[in-house]
Amino acid sequence: MAFEARDIGIGMIGCGTVGGGVATLLRDQAALYERRLGRPLRLRKVLVRDAKKARQGGAASELVTTDADAFFATADMPIIVEVAGGAGTIHEHVRRAITTGRHVVTANKSLLAAHGAELFALARRHQVSIAFEASCCGGIPVITALHAGLMANRIDALYGILNGTCNYILTEMTQQRKPYDVALSEAQQHGYAEADPTLDVSGMDAAQKLCVLASLAFGAQVTSEQVRVIGIDQLELTDIRFAAEMGYDIKLLGIAEAVEGKLSLTVQPCFLHKDVMLAQVRGPFNALSVYGHATGQTMYYGRGAGALPTASAIVSDVINLASGGYPHAFAALNLWSDQQPAARIIDHDDLCSRFYVRINAMDRPGTMARVTQALGEAGISLSAVMQHESGEGKFVPVVVLTHRARWGSLRQALAKVEALDVIDGRPVCIRIVDLPDG
Amino acid sequence: MAFEARDIGIGMIGCGTVGGGVATLLRDQAALYERRLGRPLRLRKVLVRDAKKARQGGAASELVTTDADAFFATADMPIIVEVAGGAGTIHEHVRRAITTGRHVVTANKSLLAAHGAELFALARRHQVSIAFEASCCGGIPVITALHAGLMANRIDALYGILNGTCNYILTEMTQQRKPYDVALSEAQQHGYAEADPTLDVSGMDAAQKLCVLASLAFGAQVTSEQVRVIGIDQLELTDIRFAAEMGYDIKLLGIAEAVEGKLSLTVQPCFLHKDVMLAQVRGPFNALSVYGHATGQTMYYGRGAGALPTASAIVSDVINLASGGYPHAFAALNLWSDQQPAARIIDHDDLCSRFYVRINAMDRPGTMARVTQALGEAGISLSAVMQHESGEGKFVPVVVLTHRARWGSLRQALAKVEALDVIDGRPVCIRIVDLPDG
Repeated sequence: MAFEARDIGIGMIGCGTVGGGVATLLRDQAALYERRLGRPLRLRKVLVRDAKKARQGGAASELVTTDADAFFATADMPIIVEVAGGAGTIHEHVRRAITTGRHVVTANKSLLAAHGAELFALARRHQVSIAFEASCCGGIPVITALHAGLMANRIDALYGILNGTCNYILTEMTQQRKPYDVALSEAQQHGYAEADPTLDVSGMDAAQKLCVLASLAFGAQVTSEQVRVIGIDQLELTDIRFAAEMGYDIKLLGIAEAVEGKLSLTVQPCFLHKDVMLAQVRGPFNALSVYGHATGQTMYYGRGAGALPTASAIVSDVINLASGGYPHAFAALNLWSDQQPAARIIDHDDLCSRFYVRINAMDRPGTMARVTQALGEAGISLSAVMQHESGEGKFVPVVVLTHRARWGSLRQALAKVEALDVIDGRPVCIRIVDLPDG
Repeated sequence: MAFEARDIGIGMIGCGTVGGGVATLLRDQAALYERRLGRPLRLRKVLVRDAKKARQGGAASELVTTDADAFFATADMPIIVEVAGGAGTIHEHVRRAITTGRHVVTANKSLLAAHGAELFALARRHQVSIAFEASCCGGIPVITALHAGLMANRIDALYGILNGTCNYILTEMTQQRKPYDVALSEAQQHGYAEADPTLDVSGMDAAQKLCVLASLAFGAQVTSEQVRVIGIDQLELTDIRFAAEMGYDIKLLGIAEAVEGKLSLTVQPCFLHKDVMLAQVRGPFNALSVYGHATGQTMYYGRGAGALPTASAIVSDVINLASGGYPHAFAALNLWSDQQPAARIIDHDDLCSRFYVRINAMDRPGTMARVTQALGEAGISLSAVMQHESGEGKFVPVVVLTHRARWGSLRQALAKVEALDVIDGRPVCIRIVDLPDG
């Protein structure tokens, strides 16, 4: 576990945006890191698929190779940083890094969400560690908070704005009243969204991060399939307007909550009261609120993506590995998903919450009575009803806010509402999140 | 450095509010901690001045002693937690814990601010470590962020709401327009302020925390005397009202900024634009914004005091010591104040900022011209002037906001303004903090 050479040699797999950031930090801050660590960090080798791109990313050309065997044969390289992303070959490379006795630092949330337990177990067998601060929330040290700073807490809930692309789009929709398509295309122009934005706007990226965070926080193996995911790509400006009228913002929240010994895992657009701290998180920023039994709420805020913020998390992990601090914590603490039982997930129908419901209803006498009757029969009571003026005989949006209700009951009631002849289209239903006090 | 016994024995010095919280966590969460650590934590001995009070605090009576020699002679007690606070005897106890080979966990910001470098050096000589997450911001893991999660960053600035008592009082003054005295006495009733609130409201508590944070963040030895401190005890409701009219909240901010290779260290009431995240921190909560060169802003938010939040920080430190993670980091990293040069502090007169100035001026022709001339001659340009209507010949408050100005120049100009015969009393001057982008 100790690092014997005076220099700490680093191998890097991938050299795109984040890899370029890592190369930049290691070059520009070499003196600072050597002062902090008492020994220098040295980038020894960079494994890429396309050597030309890697050089554009800032890695010195003599370090770059496309030959995996040559890369793994490099001597004095006890730490391998994986910033390529993806699965398949990259999964194999990470396994090979571990089996050749290297500590691994990775930003790869999809790999960890799918294969974390396998990789942690492999690392344990080979007496190395896996550090993954960069996998969630970019430069915000949330993983460090969960495995170190909050160690004395039983964690009761996580509420996170985990995807900067979605938060940027929602901020533009909310503040500028831009429709989804316009906000998305602007996000793409600013580099906040990929050409193919599916992974982000579908909520899947946030779901993978929620898996990584929840596994660590709750001491359970969590997989993406266990997360109920609704993206922002179907969200209408109408609902953002109604939310604002009622004092709420809509945010894409990743939520992991302990409910009666089980876990509830969701990623979905949610109503958040404008006054809570999480609702103040705007643009491409991320934040995670952690509810610990002793701390109450602590919140972590910052840039969730970008070359230098993510590289900050990677290089901080490298320094914490090189100091020996992280390897000892990794070996001694039973926190990692391979040591945990599979999560017991609550039936989503049993989730209790307040909800916002919008229906298109015919504006004629008796319509509201039929809608509220269907809801009332399912035991759903309402805290507010809102309908703007319109003309008799036309379809108008009617908004109701429910008191706390079981999702399964509301779902069934909404199916009945939808079947009424005075209702047009599917009801829109959005969870209202009331954050615990504190 | 390794812990040999199966149990991890803990000694505790002090058993007041925080000590009671530590005893509670160790008792109620024993199973959780043993699962995480693979071995149990055991409170072995509690050293107090008054055994009766300690038992009220939740420590089992057979553990409590008032005999320091008996306490330090306790076997299998490799970690000593100090939650007594204060100096003198406590300083001696901490030295004795170290020289008898114990790791120390302390919440004692005043001890660290005054004697941190001496104690860190002593710990190094005795091959033990000092953990101090609980010394700043209660349950929020800001120390962990600075020594681990943000390790790849050169830190450029810290902006902190570091004292919950002051923030509670300011929140009440702002939201309910209560005068300072009323808000203070309510804070005392709620247990947010001590019977003698001087340490809090004078800004001295925040200054001690800023020392601890700045030493770690900037790699320099910082002492309380180097911090320019202005408390909230002279703050008038008038200024909070004017701030609100102009879109600002007044917060007591601890600020440490790197300016041209030197440090600026201040604790003072500041104008903060209502829209920034730090301005949203209300009531007894704390927050710290850290500007790293790679991350940009990251912010940490939560409860800065209270039995369980502070105990969370203490017990998290204990677990991180017991895992071996913290001792290795402490030994390997050159972050601790004994290893750092003394801070070079910028002359406070050279601090550049925007400022709010309120003067009581005679409402008659020519007054504003004389005031603005005095400011103009010192090179101070104004961005806004505000004066409410009143009657000719009376004193009225006149508010000006300056553009960025050197404090020394403004100070001299205000002395001239104060000397004018149309001015009553001393000008009030409050810094306007424009947080860096991001």
